[in-house]
Amino acid sequence: MKQDIVTIGDLSNREIEEVFDFADRYLADMAGSKPYQIRGKLAIANRFLMTSLFYEPSTRTRFSFEAAMTRLGGTVLGAVDPATSSAAKGESILDTGRVMENYADVIVLRHPAEGAARALAEHVEVPVINGGDGRHEHPTQTLCDLYTLRRENKTLQDLNVLLVGDLKNGRTVHSLVYALARFKSNIITMPAKGLELPESVSRRLREEYGVVPMPRDAVFDAAQTHRPPVADIDVVYVAPGSSLQQQTAKGKIKIEGEWDSLDDAPTVNFDVCYVTRLQGERLSPGARIRYPVINRKFLKDREFADTKVLHPLPRVNELDADLDADPRAVYFKQAAYGVPVRMALISKVLGLAPFAAPRETAQPYPIYSGGRETVCANERCITRLASERNQLRAKFWLVKPAPRLLRCCYCETEFPLG
Amino acid sequence: MKQDIVTIGDLSNREIEEVFDFADRYLADMAGSKPYQIRGKLAIANRFLMTSLFYEPSTRTRFSFEAAMTRLGGTVLGAVDPATSSAAKGESILDTGRVMENYADVIVLRHPAEGAARALAEHVEVPVINGGDGRHEHPTQTLCDLYTLRRENKTLQDLNVLLVGDLKNGRTVHSLVYALARFKSNIITMPAKGLELPESVSRRLREEYGVVPMPRDAVFDAAQTHRPPVADIDVVYVAPGSSLQQQTAKGKIKIEGEWDSLDDAPTVNFDVCYVTRLQGERLSPGARIRYPVINRKFLKDREFADTKVLHPLPRVNELDADLDADPRAVYFKQAAYGVPVRMALISKVLGLAPFAAPRETAQPYPIYSGGRETVCANERCITRLASERNQLRAKFWLVKPAPRLLRCCYCETEFPLG
Amino acid sequence: MKQDIVTIGDLSNREIEEVFDFADRYLADMAGSKPYQIRGKLAIANRFLMTSLFYEPSTRTRFSFEAAMTRLGGTVLGAVDPATSSAAKGESILDTGRVMENYADVIVLRHPAEGAARALAEHVEVPVINGGDGRHEHPTQTLCDLYTLRRENKTLQDLNVLLVGDLKNGRTVHSLVYALARFKSNIITMPAKGLELPESVSRRLREEYGVVPMPRDAVFDAAQTHRPPVADIDVVYVAPGSSLQQQTAKGKIKIEGEWDSLDDAPTVNFDVCYVTRLQGERLSPGARIRYPVINRKFLKDREFADTKVLHPLPRVNELDADLDADPRAVYFKQAAYGVPVRMALISKVLGLAPFAAPRETAQPYPIYSGGRETVCANERCITRLASERNQLRAKFWLVKPAPRLLRCCYCETEFPLG
Repeated sequence: MKQDIVTIGDLSNREIEEVFDFADRYLADMAGSKPYQIRGKLAIANRFLMTSLFYEPSTRTRFSFEAAMTRLGGTVLGAVDPATSSAAKGESILDTGRVMENYADVIVLRHPAEGAARALAEHVEVPVINGGDGRHEHPTQTLCDLYTLRRENKTLQDLNVLLVGDLKNGRTVHSLVYALARFKSNIITMPAKGLELPESVSRRLREEYGVVPMPRDAVFDAAQTHRPPVADIDVVYVAPGSSLQQQTAKGKIKIEGEWDSLDDAPTVNFDVCYVTRLQGERLSPGARIRYPVINRKFLKDREFADTKVLHPLPRVNELDADLDADPRAVYFKQAAYGVPVRMALISKVLGLAPFAAPRETAQPYPIYSGGRETVCANERCITRLASERNQLRAKFWLVKPAPRLLRCCYCETEFPLG
Repeated sequence: MKQDIVTIGDLSNREIEEVFDFADRYLADMAGSKPYQIRGKLAIANRFLMTSLFYEPSTRTRFSFEAAMTRLGGTVLGAVDPATSSAAKGESILDTGRVMENYADVIVLRHPAEGAARALAEHVEVPVINGGDGRHEHPTQTLCDLYTLRRENKTLQDLNVLLVGDLKNGRTVHSLVYALARFKSNIITMPAKGLELPESVSRRLREEYGVVPMPRDAVFDAAQTHRPPVADIDVVYVAPGSSLQQQTAKGKIKIEGEWDSLDDAPTVNFDVCYVTRLQGERLSPGARIRYPVINRKFLKDREFADTKVLHPLPRVNELDADLDADPRAVYFKQAAYGVPVRMALISKVLGLAPFAAPRETAQPYPIYSGGRETVCANERCITRLASERNQLRAKFWLVKPAPRLLRCCYCETEFPLG
Repeated sequence: MKQDIVTIGDLSNREIEEVFDFADRYLADMAGSKPYQIRGKLAIANRFLMTSLFYEPSTRTRFSFEAAMTRLGGTVLGAVDPATSSAAKGESILDTGRVMENYADVIVLRHPAEGAARALAEHVEVPVINGGDGRHEHPTQTLCDLYTLRRENKTLQDLNVLLVGDLKNGRTVHSLVYALARFKSNIITMPAKGLELPESVSRRLREEYGVVPMPRDAVFDAAQTHRPPVADIDVVYVAPGSSLQQQTAKGKIKIEGEWDSLDDAPTVNFDVCYVTRLQGERLSPGARIRYPVINRKFLKDREFADTKVLHPLPRVNELDADLDADPRAVYFKQAAYGVPVRMALISKVLGLAPFAAPRETAQPYPIYSGGRETVCANERCITRLASERNQLRAKFWLVKPAPRLLRCCYCETEFPLG
């Protein structure tokens, strides 16, 4: 069975750790000397071809995939630019994929339509890796995020992760949130006003991962709620069995800007501050937003003493350049980890180093067997694209029977069926 | 002598079959295991460089060339995008070629100007493969078409090929038509109204290949002419010595939608249904056309029971997705064959596996020695491009002496000289 | 210490000659058989990755770098197109570079902002090669020019080089001019009206290289000054210790269109005629200019009998196609030399074949320690780009203390500080 990586959900926790163990080995190989050579059994991708189908701008995703494939010894067929490809002639992404599968051994797809990677994966015989599909998922970014967390914190369990910025539109954030929940880490949200984590994500955190969302004032001491950073915190998503859960069970958490003694020390540490860029290209034009900025001043207090600052990059203004030389800034490392993580993932996907862990792919919901005329509520869904409609039938999971709540099998958007 | 592949006429029938024999070997190599490795004597392209000069959009042509070159072990220099190349500074294609020949061992050119590949081939010392020049020729597409016919029908001789759609503008169709004539196969045309095979193509079929064009009503029984598909058939081009020629000599052909007995069986079988896309990008804006659509319903009758459906792709609406799972649909296979065919062609062109067959390149017409001021009548001809005029002199064959009929040596357009 | 190649000044004369000796070896390797293979100790770049960051159109620079890297056995990550890269999301070039340095072992940058390559080189740990930064520098083009001169004239010393065309905007010309001065060759300028060599270049030639600018009438006999080509000559830059210096010390130089005897022979030979293209894309729209055209007629007289005609290409009309077959035309050779020269440079930069010559990198001026608010006078300087300002502080050399003359450490623009 081929192994597609469309969502982070396509990998179990054990599989993720396996990928990371493999990435550690590649990273150690590279550390020896620069330019590094992957030698011996690891250099196994010789003559494999990858094709990059990129229907949207990308530098780092595309280049890190290309670097990973090349470091493994494989070759990459040049990226598709929609302006110079058959997409300009109206070809469906499914047809393009069915042609491309003859040219390459693995397809990396970036596409603006949500669910595009799942649709492609269903229609071709080579593995598909999702390089980002609209606001839906970007699983290799999530893997790089998690790998950075694991390397920099030595664990993925029980971390306190402050999520900052655009939590509504950033696809990387939603994938990360589910992954953190799976590893029993806590999510403390600090969104720009109006860009909070969507209710559908919150619901899924609750229902599928047992995470408990708590309003800020239920977690933090009233005295702090008007002080930064607490003032800007929105909901706190507490993972079952986490230290934070035990703390909040005992009482509200104190954070002080200035401490007189060790007794006054904060009882929460932020292990991670994950900053996201305003997804400007997805905003309606003219929209203006007050956006949080992370800089040395923001991180001056004790609860941030060991915080690792991550950012998926590119940044605009939300992450100050004054942090670049700070040891807590790991965002360029995070970008660098993209290569060994993708090398490991490609090795797995190509079947060169099969997963030892048995696959756990139980889908929690049944397929909805209702009317054929049901249309996904998400107008950016691949099933609603004019070029694909003839070839792709909409399909849904029945998340709740009454009142009916459907989840699109492609873009995973949830919506009630009237 | 270097071997350019500018038109399908640059290869003799024997050479085409040699390329296909070679492609069969590559295909067998690939079939063993995926990812395949071309090993031993076939993997001979190591360190060869190909450059893709693409001045027009393309996905499959460009990627299949790149895949072929890479599977052989060679390397491809990234494609030129006119917007980011020196063409944006007004450089002639001939100058660009003379620079590129120093960088690469073979040049693949796609260019909107007709005759561009021939002009380039004359000016550089490395072999040039035409990846499509305007409405003129696209010989590697033709080779893939022919290879698909040979593999799927076990022969290229005496086939009945139904050509559907835009027969006027589709360059792949004109190349295919001449190639079919050379292999003594018959061409049954079913064009969209106004997009019939041009008279110049028809004339060349008659005069150079001895093909006899017959009006539909001269071939088919009157009772059928108002029924589909016969109702939509235009001219039938009968190859000398073909079974169809013998049949039509005996009387008109019957096709029945419903048969009562075996006696009523049709006396013609369509071996191939070759569907083409409306060349929308070459239509004047606002033009509307009723275009034939090939689907399961169209192919329901007995004369289509063994028909192989081909399409050069990308398709838009002229080929229904309901056919995709039908065993008669071979268009995705056709795309897949692009890799072994191009591998074989590249091997030949690079001189790694020289043609055994002696070359037959007799040009049937003399060069026209008339006035230097003669201009090609085709305004899309490379000789009329402002950027090339200083470096490229127009040149013509004298097809008929009186009244004079010239054929451009570059774009092969024929026109009378007043 | 890493070796960046941002300006031609980053290489000493001895290092340049070392690169050329290496290029000679690659060229000899290639001459044997086509396709050539760089074997043995020279084929040392296996598994090295180069990335091409191209923020401006380019064919020959990009392709010759890619060909060079590939011929060495290395691999190239696809070029960035600004329209499909993170630059479209507003990412700074410095951030992009800090991500890319994790993916590749050497970065080639082309960017419209002047000084961009120096800024990038300061911020990343891998070597940076400048592939052209605005009107500033294009050192590998200069190396190719010099290598062509050395191969075609057997020396770089004491040549008489006629520079024709746009001497104001052409970045390749300014680099070439300094390099010629360093090798004690003379520069005879023949600019289009209004496109003379800028005063800042002239000053630097005088003050840093001891070159003596002489007006045309001080060099040539009055009788010739109204005849072509002398009529169109502007300033003559005489290198110290050159033959031309000795000649002009004795008296004015004679050039005759027609000679009656050997006594009347010209006393100057033009070893090189370097033609440049009008930098149209940098002109204000609507500007019209009378531009010199070099053709066989221009070169008909004896003083041009052995002249090598160079042009960085692409050409438009300033270099007539009637010269293409003339043995004096070496501009296509010049393009071809781009591959071995870049192969040699890459080998040096990657540290695979370290320079034997000790480095001579004395910077002649002190850093200006004045006000932090000083802004580079060049509005196209990288330090003035909105996307970079937060991350890049302007920095200047103090060329003259009173009145203060500064030179930007990035774009090298000189300007008085009021």
